[in-house]
Amino acid sequence: MESIITVISEEPQLKDAIMIEGLPGVGNVGKLAAEHLLDNIEAVKFADIYSKHFPPQVVLDEDCVANMVNNELYYAKNVGEGHDLVILVGDYQGMTPEGQYELSYHIIKMCQELGVRTIYTLGGYGIGKMVEEPRVLGAVTTKEFRQMLEPHGVAFSAGEPGSGIVGASGLLLGLSKIHGLDAACLMGETSGYFVDPKGAESVLRVLTSILGIEVDMSELESKAEQVEQITSKIKDMESGQDPGQDDLGYIG
Amino acid sequence: MESIITVISEEPQLKDAIMIEGLPGVGNVGKLAAEHLLDNIEAVKFADIYSKHFPPQVVLDEDCVANMVNNELYYAKNVGEGHDLVILVGDYQGMTPEGQYELSYHIIKMCQELGVRTIYTLGGYGIGKMVEEPRVLGAVTTKEFRQMLEPHGVAFSAGEPGSGIVGASGLLLGLSKIHGLDAACLMGETSGYFVDPKGAESVLRVLTSILGIEVDMSELESKAEQVEQITSKIKDMESGQDPGQDDLGYIG
Amino acid sequence: MESIITVISEEPQLKDAIMIEGLPGVGNVGKLAAEHLLDNIEAVKFADIYSKHFPPQVVLDEDCVANMVNNELYYAKNVGEGHDLVILVGDYQGMTPEGQYELSYHIIKMCQELGVRTIYTLGGYGIGKMVEEPRVLGAVTTKEFRQMLEPHGVAFSAGEPGSGIVGASGLLLGLSKIHGLDAACLMGETSGYFVDPKGAESVLRVLTSILGIEVDMSELESKAEQVEQITSKIKDMESGQDPGQDDLGYIG
Amino acid sequence: MESIITVISEEPQLKDAIMIEGLPGVGNVGKLAAEHLLDNIEAVKFADIYSKHFPPQVVLDEDCVANMVNNELYYAKNVGEGHDLVILVGDYQGMTPEGQYELSYHIIKMCQELGVRTIYTLGGYGIGKMVEEPRVLGAVTTKEFRQMLEPHGVAFSAGEPGSGIVGASGLLLGLSKIHGLDAACLMGETSGYFVDPKGAESVLRVLTSILGIEVDMSELESKAEQVEQITSKIKDMESGQDPGQDDLGYIG
Repeated sequence: MESIITVISEEPQLKDAIMIEGLPGVGNVGKLAAEHLLDNIEAVKFADIYSKHFPPQVVLDEDCVANMVNNELYYAKNVGEGHDLVILVGDYQGMTPEGQYELSYHIIKMCQELGVRTIYTLGGYGIGKMVEEPRVLGAVTTKEFRQMLEPHGVAFSAGEPGSGIVGASGLLLGLSKIHGLDAACLMGETSGYFVDPKGAESVLRVLTSILGIEVDMSELESKAEQVEQITSKIKDMESGQDPGQDDLGYIG
Repeated sequence: MESIITVISEEPQLKDAIMIEGLPGVGNVGKLAAEHLLDNIEAVKFADIYSKHFPPQVVLDEDCVANMVNNELYYAKNVGEGHDLVILVGDYQGMTPEGQYELSYHIIKMCQELGVRTIYTLGGYGIGKMVEEPRVLGAVTTKEFRQMLEPHGVAFSAGEPGSGIVGASGLLLGLSKIHGLDAACLMGETSGYFVDPKGAESVLRVLTSILGIEVDMSELESKAEQVEQITSKIKDMESGQDPGQDDLGYIG
Repeated sequence: MESIITVISEEPQLKDAIMIEGLPGVGNVGKLAAEHLLDNIEAVKFADIYSKHFPPQVVLDEDCVANMVNNELYYAKNVGEGHDLVILVGDYQGMTPEGQYELSYHIIKMCQELGVRTIYTLGGYGIGKMVEEPRVLGAVTTKEFRQMLEPHGVAFSAGEPGSGIVGASGLLLGLSKIHGLDAACLMGETSGYFVDPKGAESVLRVLTSILGIEVDMSELESKAEQVEQITSKIKDMESGQDPGQDDLGYIG
Repeated sequence: MESIITVISEEPQLKDAIMIEGLPGVGNVGKLAAEHLLDNIEAVKFADIYSKHFPPQVVLDEDCVANMVNNELYYAKNVGEGHDLVILVGDYQGMTPEGQYELSYHIIKMCQELGVRTIYTLGGYGIGKMVEEPRVLGAVTTKEFRQMLEPHGVAFSAGEPGSGIVGASGLLLGLSKIHGLDAACLMGETSGYFVDPKGAESVLRVLTSILGIEVDMSELESKAEQVEQITSKIKDMESGQDPGQDDLGYIG
């Protein structure tokens, strides 16, 4: 078995396409942002990526039809200021360092074949405390690309994140640089304790500004409010106050 | 060394064959069911599967003759309503995620060469408590296949198992779907605390109904009674009652 | 880098050779036995086996000259009743299941090229308590081979060892069977708590009987006495008696 | 993806070159020594080594430009007594035994292509206590090479280090021996508790003596003093004395 199996249902014809990655990570910020974008543009799934670097597992849909754990690629044409987009989402990243490298390398090769010129990887930057107004930090493959991003509200701060960027969001940048693609990682500040729709919204606001797209954020905002209510109730409980009888069902 | 070595003693000529997998798992339900089936039809072993994804170990038979840890394939022709069967059993699954993928992929490739059209994987669904009348839950590769199975007593319940299906029973489904085979996983409810012949019997009743075979269940039933006696004695001991002086030797 | 690098300094011309394996294991019984044999016949090193399945490490000799961790092959011609021997020794076995399989497979392939017909793997059988007269248990590739070994004092006991044989001593048997070689594992009983020269002596007495060799056991016996003295002192100390002022330096 | 990707920006033409390795390890002695050498000669980076055996991570420079975790090769021509040097530095070694072997093997192959004849690997020898005058211990590929090194102050002591040499500093020696290169490991004594510039200085004094180079050690000496001040303050604190109000910022 090859270590990665890609099942392609359609070969999209794209021009100077932009790839957006949103896989699970800190606060699931990148995943939430990419999935929200996907729900708000007309995107078509064109590829399933299976790999022995994912857990050996199937998930079931509502009809009990089994699907092997995967990553998925969607495309959308002529979005916002006329951009062709490729969007990478999924429930897992590679489980080992080797798996991380193999999968990111595979994605970069697919990007080259699809005519992708630019890659945005979306993620969270865990700061260990609640944050009112999350900044969106950036990392880039070139200084020139940084200058293009700063007017859209991306903060570049020497030494942040101090530990660099781990996983697909980092490796896609590093491999882009080696393969001559422009790439940036957009990291929304997040506590890191919860799935964080507010961090995702911050990232998506910056991304849509870059792409020149309008996206309705109301669903993310409503999820963010729910999370905020739950966390403030937890705080109340911890400080001995009555949290009331409200629904505590949503957590992410 | 190739990662999987298959030693084939005979190349069976099969028609539209059905493959049945019963490897170790939750409550060993699938393994017990497949082995019981094997003991009650005329089946012939035709292949040993060795792999560096199994433990690096030999087991000894009663003559102290060593056999490398393996999975085994049997066939039986013209069973029940005229089905040709292939049965996969063994004492181990692959020890790593990569091993799981490699072995399941290898089985699917062998199935294609053997003319297998349909795969049933057998397993247990651990529910964390004793169960009087175990349901047999199903997962499938297509909705059409589900409709074929429902009349035989397979329960399809959205969201069960919530975590999907891990290991060979899951991957064989996922890989069947990619390779155009029909496949279903039949999962007998089980506490998950014991080797569970009762769960195995439930699964086998459904499978034999699908295949149109009659199988004598008395041995599984007798094992199930033994397990029941032991577990009720354990309960009695826990609640301070005298469990009597009966034999406690059998546990699975 | 290939996963195994073999550096051959001489290609021995052997006839119907017998390979003897003595790598580290329970009580280091097999290693001690093989090394003692090696010290008492005229054997020539002809191959170093290096592998990325060993620890990434060099060891230093008394001149501070570094040698990469390895396994070594020696040969001796016309030993005892005219046997050509190949002896495999080393300080490590493969560190992972995959490494174990790769290395054992590599050895079997080398055996076939060297004209080896029979393999004896030496090991310990840990029984968790001190043993006065260690039995030597056997496991074989065929029933016929068992009959040849029984007159030499090898005990064959159904269900011992219950867990089979793990590591090189087991896999070399399993792979021999697949490749049409005769092989037996000779396991000396040992507590498993200490490096055990007494267990090694038992194994070597059986092996030399099979090969028709005379080997001076005095060094192994003297080591066994030292170990015995130490362990009885430890027992004394545990039971509060004065162990005296003797040297406690040797432990293995 | 190949397991190691080397991006070469320039192919240096070298004569009988000497390779010096200084990767992270005990007390970071080798890394500090190699980096200090690099800062004090005119060296040019000519190769980046990326690998799936490194952590799946990018690091950011002060401009937030991402660089995939790597090892780097520099060269310098006609240094000291006319030597051409190749220097290997980086922030990581391979994360697994297999990775260690693969990377060291790759370096040896590059050395052969670059015309390297001799390799010095730099490291620390952890002795578990503070040391006033660190010795520099040596290990070599041949006795002849040892004789060449002794006049430069390398100490060769049978049985030290008792456990051999683990990682790149060891494997490069072992693989040099197999491939016919001369190599030595120079190990500066160090407590092993701190990043140790003093141990690095000792190693570098020996190495520069061998190469016939003059290197200004003042920066290493100043770092060593800072570490000494901190450690003596920690001692004072532990013994209940007032450590004063000085800056405790530097630790490595």
